[in-house]
Amino acid sequence: MAHHCYFNGKIGSVEQASVYITDLGLLRGYGLFDYFRTYNGRPFQWDWYWERYERSARLLRLPNPIQKGEAYKVVMQLIEKSGLGDCAIRFILTGGYSADSVSSTSPNLLIISEDIHPVKPEEYLTGIKVIAYDFVRDLPEVKSTDYKHFMILQQDIKAAKASDVLFHKNGYISELSRSNVFIFKGDTLITPDTDILKGITRRTTLALAEGHFKIEERGITFTELLEADEVFTTSTTKRVLPITRVDDHVLGSGKIGEKTQFLLDLINEKVKNW
Amino acid sequence: MAHHCYFNGKIGSVEQASVYITDLGLLRGYGLFDYFRTYNGRPFQWDWYWERYERSARLLRLPNPIQKGEAYKVVMQLIEKSGLGDCAIRFILTGGYSADSVSSTSPNLLIISEDIHPVKPEEYLTGIKVIAYDFVRDLPEVKSTDYKHFMILQQDIKAAKASDVLFHKNGYISELSRSNVFIFKGDTLITPDTDILKGITRRTTLALAEGHFKIEERGITFTELLEADEVFTTSTTKRVLPITRVDDHVLGSGKIGEKTQFLLDLINEKVKNW
Repeated sequence: MAHHCYFNGKIGSVEQASVYITDLGLLRGYGLFDYFRTYNGRPFQWDWYWERYERSARLLRLPNPIQKGEAYKVVMQLIEKSGLGDCAIRFILTGGYSADSVSSTSPNLLIISEDIHPVKPEEYLTGIKVIAYDFVRDLPEVKSTDYKHFMILQQDIKAAKASDVLFHKNGYISELSRSNVFIFKGDTLITPDTDILKGITRRTTLALAEGHFKIEERGITFTELLEADEVFTTSTTKRVLPITRVDDHVLGSGKIGEKTQFLLDLINEKVKNW
Repeated sequence: MAHHCYFNGKIGSVEQASVYITDLGLLRGYGLFDYFRTYNGRPFQWDWYWERYERSARLLRLPNPIQKGEAYKVVMQLIEKSGLGDCAIRFILTGGYSADSVSSTSPNLLIISEDIHPVKPEEYLTGIKVIAYDFVRDLPEVKSTDYKHFMILQQDIKAAKASDVLFHKNGYISELSRSNVFIFKGDTLITPDTDILKGITRRTTLALAEGHFKIEERGITFTELLEADEVFTTSTTKRVLPITRVDDHVLGSGKIGEKTQFLLDLINEKVKNW
């Protein structure tokens, strides 16, 4: 459980790692975030995560200071040093240090090993509650460090005994704060395709569902979500997790649905043998 | 020109100041920003800045760890240590350190003395060029650390030989990246009142203009801006600065207008005697 941080070429203890206060991630919110986990000591879907990391860097116009092979070596060193079969890895790439709080000559890259904060096992049966929030993320297709709305809403989420927030805007839902949303209508699996971050577990789930269900990637109205047979969310740490309450509305049967369970079993099988 | 940073109770050299990488400002973009300058060694409009700082903290739900009187003492110490009559002071308040990258027990407050980066004197005559960008800030009324769009657009601003970016959405303009916008139509001074951060220099300018011009705080369409007699921007470091180009459009006479000059003279007079 000793975690470490790679910072611009060096690996040290995560507790000691620091950045100077002129970092543009801190001063200007100018930073990229990515996050994945290992199963059996191996990074899950590394190629897909790397692809997304590079895409986010390009869209944020942050120069990427590390090649894929080198990054993989760092990740494997961090996993080994953690002493854990399963750990999480966080990438943070910022605009770097700046003398005038705007311009910078080189980015700062942090790669951090962390504990995984798993979902409580009973939530895979009962599902989670989310609160609805009228909002769509700025640059939704980019995984930036901008989670301020989720942070601001912490008190509301706790007060409602909920686990997360569901973003919706102009009658359409998009995503939770850090995960994607799917619904089942009969045998059709539907998930939004715009105004979202295209999660790696979303992609994994779509691949697993193929051949089993009819699949639609398209806008989902809030009403459609409320009337869906089953609703679930996907993320690196949640895998396939039922959503059974939105504010005071009960979704579907109020517990995990049969088809959600089927997909959860498929993904559990996949990661077991990763 | 030696600058310093107050960090949770201690003052040290700004070059040495750092935060641990578990800071939520860095990891989650969860941070407040405020900024003011001194004239003749005295913080300009301190009461108004403090009011805004407290308001931003409240809206971001960040607990404010310092009282006004104590903060003023820190600011005066930083000014004295800088050895400069005129310097800038930056407040950064973040969500604090977090073990799970979400929850935190106490915020981190940084108060930093900095050099002022003044506008080039000739720009008060020629005015500046801005590029138009279809966007409205998220939580515009809060001065957060979220400047990622401005950072992403740096290359475009430079390529266009412009100084800044003008945000507009659905036909209405709002603000530049870090400053407010005013236009003159005849003897009427107009400035947007929604989707903006209400700047302290905006407030100062409105107070100075009273009695001299008819004043309207209301939405301004993009077309209205392009057809205005005079356009200018206001900020702590810019004071009253003409805008004379938006992309390829020349605004007004293409140089500082008579009424803008009048307001610039008024504010220059005010700060001279501050």
